[in-house]
Amino acid sequence: MELFTYFRSSAAYRVRIALNLKGIKHRLTPVNLLSGENLGDAYKTINPQGLVPTLKLDDGRLLTQSTAMLEYLEAEYPAIALLPANHYEAARVRAWANLIACDIHPVDNLRVLKYLKGTLNVSDDEKTAWYHHWIQEGFRALEPELAAAPYCHGSEVTLADLYLIPQVYNALRFNLDMSAYPKIQSIWEACNALPAFDAARPENQPDSTI
Amino acid sequence: MELFTYFRSSAAYRVRIALNLKGIKHRLTPVNLLSGENLGDAYKTINPQGLVPTLKLDDGRLLTQSTAMLEYLEAEYPAIALLPANHYEAARVRAWANLIACDIHPVDNLRVLKYLKGTLNVSDDEKTAWYHHWIQEGFRALEPELAAAPYCHGSEVTLADLYLIPQVYNALRFNLDMSAYPKIQSIWEACNALPAFDAARPENQPDSTI
Repeated sequence: MELFTYFRSSAAYRVRIALNLKGIKHRLTPVNLLSGENLGDAYKTINPQGLVPTLKLDDGRLLTQSTAMLEYLEAEYPAIALLPANHYEAARVRAWANLIACDIHPVDNLRVLKYLKGTLNVSDDEKTAWYHHWIQEGFRALEPELAAAPYCHGSEVTLADLYLIPQVYNALRFNLDMSAYPKIQSIWEACNALPAFDAARPENQPDSTI
Repeated sequence: MELFTYFRSSAAYRVRIALNLKGIKHRLTPVNLLSGENLGDAYKTINPQGLVPTLKLDDGRLLTQSTAMLEYLEAEYPAIALLPANHYEAARVRAWANLIACDIHPVDNLRVLKYLKGTLNVSDDEKTAWYHHWIQEGFRALEPELAAAPYCHGSEVTLADLYLIPQVYNALRFNLDMSAYPKIQSIWEACNALPAFDAARPENQPDSTI
């Protein structure tokens, strides 16, 4: 498989972790979001939204949207399962993942921040307050729900961890005070001790400028 | 089952359609987002984010996040399937659903609009431009992908339709020019001709003020 990725993209980061955890052979093709490569005609033919990631399967078929990719990988490569077999428990894991994927990440996404700054002329302080606000709203609801024993759902890594870790990376990058979220912090440490998570970190990517 | 709902909530609207399509016996309990009932202690004990919908199962267990609920209903009530059996086709349907659920809906959500107006003091015109911008970005990418024959994925209703119809409802409510999206318009008409979609419309809800 070929994953079109950007080192700091949270959505790509989720899929990098999944490919590593499931041991799926793949190569990474960087797409530079800062230079606008993602909005060029070449990339838009494979991803009409101009977003990363895109996953190219071995037969050339393309998948967009990280959540759809992760569900696909879960269905095709079930040996290392990232969802509990019980439907209710799986729904809890998906709810945590979706809280991040829908209610935090897109509102703080680069294209939204660009609109705030470029079109609505908000100040840097206002932009940072916005960024922190949506993470705090989400983490406040999430923190009491998580098992953190040591992962989100307990002793096994689930999809929820794949969404949480990239979001914590962003929170730390933008200097959010994490002291109110001890469980989230301990999950961050437990996950990053695993090679699959470590290899997927932004600073360990071929296109990293860190 | 009991669905905590608000007549104009897109996320609740999706789940109302699914419950109707799958013929699942349920009752609707309105939560008033305008009066702030959703942010009161009573509701926050069942939904820590203070968002609708919440789904209460017959045994009293609670589910949050519409995408997690829809996957749960699909797993528990597979007789009327809303995802193709083929994993790649299911991923395409989920990608369309997630484009709406992640990249359009949350950025235009009521709480975000309130922040724009209340904290960033944007004008009504700027707020409307913001609202239209994110729908247009999404619909432009979505339109060429859809089968519209007559539904998003072809002759059978899928999860993608459950996400698209509430988003089109919002677009029309905010007077977005839909002429660039003929396939989306024809899917809107085809779905609304079905009793399950019609019964789920905002104006047909017990708490509707339309």
